[in-house]
Amino acid sequence: MVYLSLCIHNHQPAGNFDFVLKDAYKQSYWPFLKILSRYPSIKLTLHNSGYLLDWIAKNRPEYIELLGKMVARGQVEVLGGGFYEPILPVIPDEDRLGQIGLMSERIELMLGKKPRGMWLAERVWEPTLPTTLKAAGIEYIIVDDHHFIKSGVSPEKLCGYYLTEDRGNVVKVFPGSELLRYLIPFRTVDEFEGELKKISDNDDVSGIIYGDDGEKFGVWPGTYKLVFEDGWLESFFERISSLDWIKTLTLSEYVEAEEPQGRVYLPTTSYMEMGEWSLPREASEAYSELNKAMENEEGGELVRRFLQGGTWRNFFSKYSESNWMHKRMLQVSSRISALRAKATAVENLAEAEEALYRSQANDAYWHGVFGGLYLPHLRTEVYRSIIEAETLIGTQPLGSAIKIEEADLDADGYDEVVLRSAELSLFVSPRNGGGLFELDYLPAGLNLCNTLTRWEEAYHSRVEELCKEGTDDGDGTKSIHDLVSAKEEGLEEHLIVDSCRRAAFKDHFLSINENLDDFSRNVHSTLSDFHTSPYNVEKAKKGLLLEREGSVAGAAVKVAKSIEGVGGHSFKVDYAVECSGGSKEQEAPGSVLFGIEMNLILPCCDGPACFYNIEPTELGSLEVGLGSKGAIDGVERVRLVDEHTGIVISIDLDRAVSLWRYPIYTVSLSESGFEKIYQGSCLLFLFPFELKSAVKEELSMLVRVEKFEGE
Amino acid sequence: MVYLSLCIHNHQPAGNFDFVLKDAYKQSYWPFLKILSRYPSIKLTLHNSGYLLDWIAKNRPEYIELLGKMVARGQVEVLGGGFYEPILPVIPDEDRLGQIGLMSERIELMLGKKPRGMWLAERVWEPTLPTTLKAAGIEYIIVDDHHFIKSGVSPEKLCGYYLTEDRGNVVKVFPGSELLRYLIPFRTVDEFEGELKKISDNDDVSGIIYGDDGEKFGVWPGTYKLVFEDGWLESFFERISSLDWIKTLTLSEYVEAEEPQGRVYLPTTSYMEMGEWSLPREASEAYSELNKAMENEEGGELVRRFLQGGTWRNFFSKYSESNWMHKRMLQVSSRISALRAKATAVENLAEAEEALYRSQANDAYWHGVFGGLYLPHLRTEVYRSIIEAETLIGTQPLGSAIKIEEADLDADGYDEVVLRSAELSLFVSPRNGGGLFELDYLPAGLNLCNTLTRWEEAYHSRVEELCKEGTDDGDGTKSIHDLVSAKEEGLEEHLIVDSCRRAAFKDHFLSINENLDDFSRNVHSTLSDFHTSPYNVEKAKKGLLLEREGSVAGAAVKVAKSIEGVGGHSFKVDYAVECSGGSKEQEAPGSVLFGIEMNLILPCCDGPACFYNIEPTELGSLEVGLGSKGAIDGVERVRLVDEHTGIVISIDLDRAVSLWRYPIYTVSLSESGFEKIYQGSCLLFLFPFELKSAVKEELSMLVRVEKFEGE
Repeated sequence: MVYLSLCIHNHQPAGNFDFVLKDAYKQSYWPFLKILSRYPSIKLTLHNSGYLLDWIAKNRPEYIELLGKMVARGQVEVLGGGFYEPILPVIPDEDRLGQIGLMSERIELMLGKKPRGMWLAERVWEPTLPTTLKAAGIEYIIVDDHHFIKSGVSPEKLCGYYLTEDRGNVVKVFPGSELLRYLIPFRTVDEFEGELKKISDNDDVSGIIYGDDGEKFGVWPGTYKLVFEDGWLESFFERISSLDWIKTLTLSEYVEAEEPQGRVYLPTTSYMEMGEWSLPREASEAYSELNKAMENEEGGELVRRFLQGGTWRNFFSKYSESNWMHKRMLQVSSRISALRAKATAVENLAEAEEALYRSQANDAYWHGVFGGLYLPHLRTEVYRSIIEAETLIGTQPLGSAIKIEEADLDADGYDEVVLRSAELSLFVSPRNGGGLFELDYLPAGLNLCNTLTRWEEAYHSRVEELCKEGTDDGDGTKSIHDLVSAKEEGLEEHLIVDSCRRAAFKDHFLSINENLDDFSRNVHSTLSDFHTSPYNVEKAKKGLLLEREGSVAGAAVKVAKSIEGVGGHSFKVDYAVECSGGSKEQEAPGSVLFGIEMNLILPCCDGPACFYNIEPTELGSLEVGLGSKGAIDGVERVRLVDEHTGIVISIDLDRAVSLWRYPIYTVSLSESGFEKIYQGSCLLFLFPFELKSAVKEELSMLVRVEKFEGE
Repeated sequence: MVYLSLCIHNHQPAGNFDFVLKDAYKQSYWPFLKILSRYPSIKLTLHNSGYLLDWIAKNRPEYIELLGKMVARGQVEVLGGGFYEPILPVIPDEDRLGQIGLMSERIELMLGKKPRGMWLAERVWEPTLPTTLKAAGIEYIIVDDHHFIKSGVSPEKLCGYYLTEDRGNVVKVFPGSELLRYLIPFRTVDEFEGELKKISDNDDVSGIIYGDDGEKFGVWPGTYKLVFEDGWLESFFERISSLDWIKTLTLSEYVEAEEPQGRVYLPTTSYMEMGEWSLPREASEAYSELNKAMENEEGGELVRRFLQGGTWRNFFSKYSESNWMHKRMLQVSSRISALRAKATAVENLAEAEEALYRSQANDAYWHGVFGGLYLPHLRTEVYRSIIEAETLIGTQPLGSAIKIEEADLDADGYDEVVLRSAELSLFVSPRNGGGLFELDYLPAGLNLCNTLTRWEEAYHSRVEELCKEGTDDGDGTKSIHDLVSAKEEGLEEHLIVDSCRRAAFKDHFLSINENLDDFSRNVHSTLSDFHTSPYNVEKAKKGLLLEREGSVAGAAVKVAKSIEGVGGHSFKVDYAVECSGGSKEQEAPGSVLFGIEMNLILPCCDGPACFYNIEPTELGSLEVGLGSKGAIDGVERVRLVDEHTGIVISIDLDRAVSLWRYPIYTVSLSESGFEKIYQGSCLLFLFPFELKSAVKEELSMLVRVEKFEGE
């Protein structure tokens, strides 16, 4: 006889498109539950993440009704978790408890039973979690057997559950079986039975745990046909209920029925693949190759047993944008924490907390085989939630006042400066080219600088290979074929890597012969390092002065830019570029181009609703899509318009300049293959600059953000 | 030009023998500092752990005087740390801050400068440490480059320092070079120069960090001759000061001189070897073999880059005694924490805190290549400190009162019971055979049950091989030869593995033909599982009743033992063993032996001062060493005497029984080879028992602990 605990985890990220949720519900969540309900003898443990659960409760009450019945009759145990599926170890202790508490309450309210166990988001484990879990009233969780293997647990002992603890706080941990994850639902029910029979025959193993994503049943490509149309799930349940040597148990029944296998201490790890994804590019590639080689090599299992990749926190090092969102979230969290500590009740605090928790939803903070960080709508939801929380707790000044804050927000060891008006927040990093890294427009809850840098990915070399192969079938494995079939035409054109994080007001000196195409592909030659170097910063009453003296092709040049007049929904940026003479050793190139780079994104991205309005041009005003690329001279005004949402960014200049524009496309991995994603538009305002002593050029820009009636 | 930061870490565990400290001072700490003082241009960063620093200040003031001068002239930077070198991640946050704060204050008081950086004990890293370090005012630490490699940092980037953070709290981390650890001081100064030249020629590397144990300079076998007599250290310093392309910097100078290399997130790891030591035995052996194989294999470096062993916390799973000490320490910590939170000042709190901190000294909690957990005097110091702290905060009841506590102290998911009188604390685990796992005698600060179980070690197979080889030289490597030379005669006789943790009042049923020798070697056949199974527990007003019904060779037997009369320095244990009849299917063996096992240890172990006094015997009273083995019948009284400290344990029985006794020796690794260590003496009180219905046998024991005037 063998115990079998089946755990299903259904999840949709906060901010995901409504149609995606509808489809997933119809193709997976609902048919799965309905079929299960016809086999009352099969016990199952179920987790729906908070955002999804709310959506279901609001839009598909029949699901909650049926689930409630199944819970009441003891067939289904519902697991808790962090409400918005945060990576628990990287959020503050208070928020960990808040998220788990919110979820537990919601489940008790909906289904009449408080959860005893929880699903750990992305199974990201850190050793201090037991203290959190104990405090949150959680008795047990499920992770992967991978975690246990990395603690040195012998392969034959990956069954039942173990005890672990931190500072004496005990929690029970189930190792989810990798074997079962590969069998269910991708192999036949006969094969499943065969493997389970082997386990059952092993006297040392009393029970085995299956924990996996519910989307594997209907949402993943090809699985709807397999699982439902071809009847895999029914056969599976049919078989289990017919075999008297398999006994299904919910996790709570399991801990009542059996003693722990022993005591274990898990390292900082998640499932195997996360280790690969979180490593820096070079290491990720090396690790992935090694893993693959060892899969096929004799004795490779002995090596793989001790291989480990990176830890989840590494994403903060890998992607500046992930780090930035995380630290912005922490800033809000610490403000909310201070308000919680106040003796008197604070208005809107519960709403602000929920917005904060929503901003902690893990999906937008990392990238593996799903889009994650690469999906602008997920990042947008994070910023929307952060801004909502800030608005609720009154972070902005009132009226025409301006607030200036200085702190090391992104934990890079250097201070950033924040300028806040009633409707705008500007986040400037003097350290990194004096750039504007976040431009929040509060009435719309938008960060208009939410453009992702074109990072190098370990898998880009594979894209290149695939593109070279063309339609040739070759002898690639099935998974590569899948990816080939999904790739867009000309993807290799977009395999461009940026040298530094994208922002607004990054300053460039380019050769007079430089061209847009090279610049857009980041293969131009730079004459200076202003765009990546530290600027001195001086706070003024109404703004900020950023200055840097540097060398441009041997000449001493000073760039000063002031950000002033932040008020209501606009601000002014004044540039002064000054040369104090060339060095004697080098021949200065005479005339160069000075360029101000801005990267901006609107809610509807490069869709038909979004366009540039540029004026004047030779032919009057020009209207052209945000996905377009081109160079125009004599520009004094450019507007970025999102007709659908009514958001307009206007940039007015006090002198005519050249404008280069091009869209930022990234190439990233999704579950259905490689894809190109629009991340924003780059604008480069250019004017010639003489590298001669006492030359000084000035330019003033007025940036205005407005919201008109959208469609 | 290349920066070189030299960091030296001097450490002696709390509770180490005075002569060891004297020797280490004379052979290493003092000559090192004196020689360094003659090269004022060589900057160095130095850490003396708190216990050692206190000893030096008290016993060798000339060291502090010289060090003070060197600090004042900027030659030496002194690092802080946890005062008693605790493994920071496994002690409560408050204690982390307390330990670091105590150390910083002590250093400031002695040397006039508060440390900015610290040494991380055993380089055991966990991701939440930056929050602790920031709160403790620590700006930077040094770990191994191993930590960085495991984060995916490319080998060529293991230089300078990095930023890391937890919840926005930033700390700088230096990667200590493995290469330098192998060069210094074991290779020639020329070789060192050659390797450093290569590093200096690499444009990407601006500086390299050396961090290592000071004991490598004079204390480790053979190094006094090499480093001092043969003049290695002088040549080394001479060479460094003569080369203009090497610039030594203290760590604080380093962080001023250079920007960070980047951002990094380190996993739960320590140096490479710790990963091997902390794994469970089977995995440890497999990991160690794999590592060795990859050292010699072509391309093995590509594999080793991603190999990881266990984490430090695993020692709690590997050694029950380590876990027990840790959880006992946590119990005291949480009591002290509660007192800290009190509004009114608590008497003795600072002293109790320091005793608590002393109990957190890492050395006794684990085992690698040094004795560590295997050294009774280090464990004794932990218990002494715990008992001291408990005494200071008044944990014991007054007069003849008795306090009974029930809680899951060891975090195994089941409650233990504590009986406290004015002079004794008894820690009973109903779960584990109803055994007594700790018997504290408070007037002497001793845990008399501090006997280490004979655990299986991965290296035991090597001992066996070595013993088989005998004096044959074979083709072993140098290190194996070293070990052979250090081994004692007949070590293989002691490679015995126990089946469960040693304690007192563990109950056995043995065959009437069983013999002491088999029992002592744990190869006897057991007729029951009473010694490892759960006992029901009932608390009485003055004690505890433990009961278990089980099966002995097919017969139903109940064992009841009550622990009562705990008061002053004695307690009584009453046994009742009852048979309610044999099963019909099996032939009961008729008569068996019932045995009560006790494991006890006295401060002077099996030394000449310690002996048994057993009476009566045929020849009157018998006096024989605690290291002796033997069986005697008709015993009614046994005393364990430590003449040196005056501690006497008396056990009086109300009937004559047989007494088997044998010493517990473990075989463990130390820096000079394998060694046999006495861990206590096992006493087994035996009487025959008939497996027949309605048979009931009783026995009453009075245990008394006293302290007379010692020598």
